[in-house]
Amino acid sequence: MKNLLVIQSGGPTAVINSSLAGVIKGGFDHADKIGKVYGGLYGIEGVAEERIVPLEKFKEDGLLDLLKQTPSSYLGSCRKKLPKFEEDREFYEKIFEIFKKYDIGYFFCIGGNDSMDTVDKMSRYADEIGSDVRVIGVPKTIDNDLALTDHTPGYGSAAKFIANSLRQLKKDTEVYSMPSVVVLEAMGRNAGWLTAAAALANDDSTQAADVICLPEVDFDFDAFLAKVEKVSKEQETVMIAVSVGIHDKEGNYIMENIKSMQKEHDRFGHAALGGVGQIIRNSIASDLGLKVRSIELSTLQRCWASGASLCDVNEAFDAGYKGVDFACTGLTGVVPGFKRISDNPYKIEIVPYDVRQIANVEKKIPQEMISTDGFGVTDQFIKYALPLIEGEPQVKYNAGQLQFAPRVW
Amino acid sequence: MKNLLVIQSGGPTAVINSSLAGVIKGGFDHADKIGKVYGGLYGIEGVAEERIVPLEKFKEDGLLDLLKQTPSSYLGSCRKKLPKFEEDREFYEKIFEIFKKYDIGYFFCIGGNDSMDTVDKMSRYADEIGSDVRVIGVPKTIDNDLALTDHTPGYGSAAKFIANSLRQLKKDTEVYSMPSVVVLEAMGRNAGWLTAAAALANDDSTQAADVICLPEVDFDFDAFLAKVEKVSKEQETVMIAVSVGIHDKEGNYIMENIKSMQKEHDRFGHAALGGVGQIIRNSIASDLGLKVRSIELSTLQRCWASGASLCDVNEAFDAGYKGVDFACTGLTGVVPGFKRISDNPYKIEIVPYDVRQIANVEKKIPQEMISTDGFGVTDQFIKYALPLIEGEPQVKYNAGQLQFAPRVW
Repeated sequence: MKNLLVIQSGGPTAVINSSLAGVIKGGFDHADKIGKVYGGLYGIEGVAEERIVPLEKFKEDGLLDLLKQTPSSYLGSCRKKLPKFEEDREFYEKIFEIFKKYDIGYFFCIGGNDSMDTVDKMSRYADEIGSDVRVIGVPKTIDNDLALTDHTPGYGSAAKFIANSLRQLKKDTEVYSMPSVVVLEAMGRNAGWLTAAAALANDDSTQAADVICLPEVDFDFDAFLAKVEKVSKEQETVMIAVSVGIHDKEGNYIMENIKSMQKEHDRFGHAALGGVGQIIRNSIASDLGLKVRSIELSTLQRCWASGASLCDVNEAFDAGYKGVDFACTGLTGVVPGFKRISDNPYKIEIVPYDVRQIANVEKKIPQEMISTDGFGVTDQFIKYALPLIEGEPQVKYNAGQLQFAPRVW
Repeated sequence: MKNLLVIQSGGPTAVINSSLAGVIKGGFDHADKIGKVYGGLYGIEGVAEERIVPLEKFKEDGLLDLLKQTPSSYLGSCRKKLPKFEEDREFYEKIFEIFKKYDIGYFFCIGGNDSMDTVDKMSRYADEIGSDVRVIGVPKTIDNDLALTDHTPGYGSAAKFIANSLRQLKKDTEVYSMPSVVVLEAMGRNAGWLTAAAALANDDSTQAADVICLPEVDFDFDAFLAKVEKVSKEQETVMIAVSVGIHDKEGNYIMENIKSMQKEHDRFGHAALGGVGQIIRNSIASDLGLKVRSIELSTLQRCWASGASLCDVNEAFDAGYKGVDFACTGLTGVVPGFKRISDNPYKIEIVPYDVRQIANVEKKIPQEMISTDGFGVTDQFIKYALPLIEGEPQVKYNAGQLQFAPRVW
């Protein structure tokens, strides 16, 4: 009987620990096939340093529930990009030696696009050396940009935070009897799913998102200002959501106009973006003369577990749990992903996707979900995304403070 | 039998509409003394323009509950400063003519420091002309800077948002195994109550606020950087909360260092502050060479009803309701305020305070609640503030969207 090792990788989300809870519970429930459940701290880098801890304590009543409502990566994370094993086998050899030492037969990596690259390489390396370690990738990313799966755990809760932020900001903005504009800056480098979630702020009685600027659409300042001006003539408040990644038709990021741009690059080579909301704000103030405020949700949008989507929390858990099922039936190199059965009633199935078709592929918003003027989304997007923010988990507080899972090592 | 007119004034909070619900319910429940319940739109300015609407529809089941969870001012607001009536009676004459037309005998203004000036002047004018209109101020402000009352409705919910934001940001920040600093910028011009609420992010197992910079303490860059450096040597992450209003010992706002400072001034003459978090961030990055991110909660902290404090929601309602009781017993020129009976168990009484002692007085954090090094708070503050964020209201969502009271006019 082999043991299970799980790591978390990439940026935090509100529900990545719900997937961790799913993997842990799956491990406990497959006691016929799985021995101990271990966690690796700080991703694959921590595994290489043998930072491995037992997670058996989660059998205690209530601890898994606390884990499900703890945002960010409980085990810590890293952003290491593995070398190709055809070129550099040393790191892989070290990892598989540690697997041997801990008698690991099941390896789980909960992560996004870049982390699926790790899963892909690890599973191919295992295959090449004839190891029977099963390697499973459990999807997570607020960006919702993974291929094949209908959507990703983490997206629904971040989308819900954006939608309800805008709904409440709309109330705040319309309080004085005067024209007023709000610019909300959302995360999402190349895929606009999170920014598009602004549209989920609208319902029959509240229009809380008027203009949406996605990275899928080339950004044209003149067209944008004309659109804002038009809306501002029809109504007192204009609510705008802008992706950090908007760019002109030559592909230059709008935020690169700022001289004070942060020069930092993260280890995967993406520019560290931010500040586009302020540029948009300044141009509305100077060109249109409107009262305008820019709001950057920053990392709050990826760690807001206290207002998470119940659908997202449950699906994140189920993806982790189902991943263990898949591994126990002998699958490896797969990602438990969501296949949508129907929009209304909302129904999905969790199926195993081939990680090779997911790693390093970025799924953007398809054309048919973007409105013809490029400043909004279609009903098709709403039908797709609205079910993902549904439901509110019963979250545990103590003395007004959101409670987290305690460290068990 | 006279009618009741209620307005809302000043900046939004998460629970100002809960006070409105309290006034409305109080009006309905005193049917022996009070006829109709009216709302004035956009504050005293709207009353002068006869923008008066009936609120009887709130007798319908469930509508007052929706109003209690609707952030910002349901009736709209204004920031008008009334002239002294000794110098300019015209505005007052117009208002009291409208009172006569609508047969108003009870006038309620829900507002903060500046709005209590309106209540003060209106009640003194009524007294001078021998009017029997009773004028009541219902307190609200996220800044918690009103005199006499133990605390103000609106503070608890904003404090809770700041505390739980920091708790979740702490989890987000510690995810990578590397030194990292977060600077959270909180509102509050001259009184640091909101920034101090960062300390409510800490409990036995989570230290989510390490350094707190209050406007009550002269800000010294060298001492601040030394403090941050010291903490960063003891632990990987440093969580900092900074008030927008911090200033050097000469009284110059730190944020006035930015050339790009907004030049706007609001109608009460306060500078429109913002951006200090970025200055602090830049100095930590350049002087200490640490990875640091600045987060500005902006208006979210004053309109976050979806994570409100139940204590705050209930007390806001009770203050409005009790204000109607006071008016019905013949009081005028008073503010229903909170008198603390005990910290543990937490208990308050609502008593009538003289508005003349509240208007234009700003209550700052007393010295004994500030730590000796000036970068934190004492246990006395925690004992005072922790009960105010307690409890979570059962908030109604539909399809993942926070629900609001519909417009009834």
